Amino acid sequence: MDLLELRNEIDKLDDELIPLLLKRMDISRQVAEYKVQNGIPVLNEQRELEILEDVASKCGEQGEVIKTVFSAIMDASRALQHKIIGGGEELRNLISNAKCEKNLTANGEPIACQGVQGAYSGEAAKALFPDSPIDFHKQFEDVFEAVNQNKARFGIIPVENSTAGSVHESYDLIMKYKFFIVGAYDLRVDHCLCAKPGVKFEDIENVYSHTQALSQCNIFLKNFDFTGITFSNTAAAAKFVSESEKNNIAAICSESAAKKYGLKIIRKGIQNVTNNTTRFIVISKELVIDEDAEKISLIFSAPHRTGSLYRVLGRFSMTGLNLTKLESRPVANGRFDYYFYVDILGSVRDEQTLDLLCALSDELPEFSFLGNYYEGK
Amino acid sequence: MDLLELRNEIDKLDDELIPLLLKRMDISRQVAEYKVQNGIPVLNEQRELEILEDVASKCGEQGEVIKTVFSAIMDASRALQHKIIGGGEELRNLISNAKCEKNLTANGEPIACQGVQGAYSGEAAKALFPDSPIDFHKQFEDVFEAVNQNKARFGIIPVENSTAGSVHESYDLIMKYKFFIVGAYDLRVDHCLCAKPGVKFEDIENVYSHTQALSQCNIFLKNFDFTGITFSNTAAAAKFVSESEKNNIAAICSESAAKKYGLKIIRKGIQNVTNNTTRFIVISKELVIDEDAEKISLIFSAPHRTGSLYRVLGRFSMTGLNLTKLESRPVANGRFDYYFYVDILGSVRDEQTLDLLCALSDELPEFSFLGNYYEGK
Repeated sequence: MDLLELRNEIDKLDDELIPLLLKRMDISRQVAEYKVQNGIPVLNEQRELEILEDVASKCGEQGEVIKTVFSAIMDASRALQHKIIGGGEELRNLISNAKCEKNLTANGEPIACQGVQGAYSGEAAKALFPDSPIDFHKQFEDVFEAVNQNKARFGIIPVENSTAGSVHESYDLIMKYKFFIVGAYDLRVDHCLCAKPGVKFEDIENVYSHTQALSQCNIFLKNFDFTGITFSNTAAAAKFVSESEKNNIAAICSESAAKKYGLKIIRKGIQNVTNNTTRFIVISKELVIDEDAEKISLIFSAPHRTGSLYRVLGRFSMTGLNLTKLESRPVANGRFDYYFYVDILGSVRDEQTLDLLCALSDELPEFSFLGNYYEGK
Repeated sequence: MDLLELRNEIDKLDDELIPLLLKRMDISRQVAEYKVQNGIPVLNEQRELEILEDVASKCGEQGEVIKTVFSAIMDASRALQHKIIGGGEELRNLISNAKCEKNLTANGEPIACQGVQGAYSGEAAKALFPDSPIDFHKQFEDVFEAVNQNKARFGIIPVENSTAGSVHESYDLIMKYKFFIVGAYDLRVDHCLCAKPGVKFEDIENVYSHTQALSQCNIFLKNFDFTGITFSNTAAAAKFVSESEKNNIAAICSESAAKKYGLKIIRKGIQNVTNNTTRFIVISKELVIDEDAEKISLIFSAPHRTGSLYRVLGRFSMTGLNLTKLESRPVANGRFDYYFYVDILGSVRDEQTLDLLCALSDELPEFSFLGNYYEGK
């Protein structure tokens, strides 16, 4: 056969496959309906595994491959069953009871940030909530505590930098406090090396800043053999340097922090890459979903089985959802078990998306919906 | 229909689907053979997209779902075509020319590590290469340079900690030097707070250590309001503290580093979690594949399209391969584009696995095979 004939053969086969697949999905739908009516649990993992083993045994050396195709076929049925099953009641209630707001605002109430005046998180807060004062706190956890004790409606913390990666501590605290992400802001970050007026570049030995900023500028630090000293925050480091009597120290901070504390900018843009962006999130005790929400953040675990993450991703794909972040994070039990941090573009106001999340919240060993929010830039 | 009848219906449909799927794969195989014989490129993305759009248009509201099933069917064909296409020549040559060794050894040649005597990486080196002396270097990059200049056959660097996550710098350096991972070791890490004899806990203000160690002990540091000061290495911090005249400083390091530099252990196991493990890798200029190699590390990017990562993971699943790590890493261009770090359990001596990697190296926009190695514990 030539190429055209072979392609026609494939097209003919596809025309046979499509109605069979649709019919299979329709019967799966009937199975789900029957089960719901008769109070039988819908998910039957044993039956799934039996079908997959049966398929594998019938396909010889193509067993593993056709098995994967069948797992996709069964997941397609599950995608259809979401609505019938209507599971994930807890998540469904949480979302339907969420406050809906247009253009998230704190109504002039203070915003909790970490650091001191001039911190990058303060710049993100000003961009998102121009009418609110900012309350600065020493540690990330203090920001959570301020929100927890209703001293601030929202808090702002960093979650990811385009060069240094995820800020694990922020994720850990969200899980600990069971808070929600109700907004986000991508801030362009340009680090400066700053010192007291009169201090020369060649005098500098020790450089104070936040761990993340030190890591974002590590090539610069290495080149000049500077010692990095961790500080709770870049602006706090600037304040410390401005008040210190030492003449051999500098801070890495923003231009605005340098101005604020009367420091001289010695070098600008000292970070490893020119386009350095930090993503800040708005944390809240109650779930608020902006009318323009476009991003969903999740944390889940998947069963320890070949292809289990693949199958979860297939469900997103079947719902037409795109991932913008996926990260396996070792569970802090020292055994290299994994959670997955996932960001997707989508809205829970879309019924299919909501049904999918509710189904996954029932099916997966661990599943946390962190929020659905708008991301400013 | 009752449940049993519905299930029988599904079983009957599956018995119709299986031969059609196998036949479709067989014709795809013929297409691949025809193309190879006639010098036509095998991968035809345009034709794939047309088929998927056609399927979607025929399936109405099930379009997106059945499309995903068909993408799995087409990937199943690709899995079958790997052998026929025989692509990825560059990778295939690299792997077939790799040295094969049983029980990786440096034959008494020195091993390059970062830090000073007593560093955790030295413990990993001793466990992996008991017959080799260790050459310590100041920075991670110096370890790469030592290997690059043939001063050491292998170098040892950390890549992941069970609490703090990936060490991005190590990955960046592997990519920069185009080195290979030829071995790995999971080391249990117990951090100690250590100071000069005579220094009391209540005297301590500043604590010196590596950024990762400071971050692994951040709860402890926070509780006692200690200031962390970054040092190139935990053992170098211990050495510094032992030689300093100050009586208000301490180091976070291993028990052996404390002993080595005559420091007193003030607190043991101060890290956030009890089971704290760091994964070290062995880097090499030439590709060596241990006879017992069981782990493969890859870095790749996937096309910007719904489900593209899903489809890549499907290929691993069809080959029966399990992932042990998956992380999207923002490309350092400030635009939140992503690479994926992936570890899988498997061996390139398995023909199917090799064929898959070669096919992916042709298909994906970026694909780097970092190595296939044995991981000690």
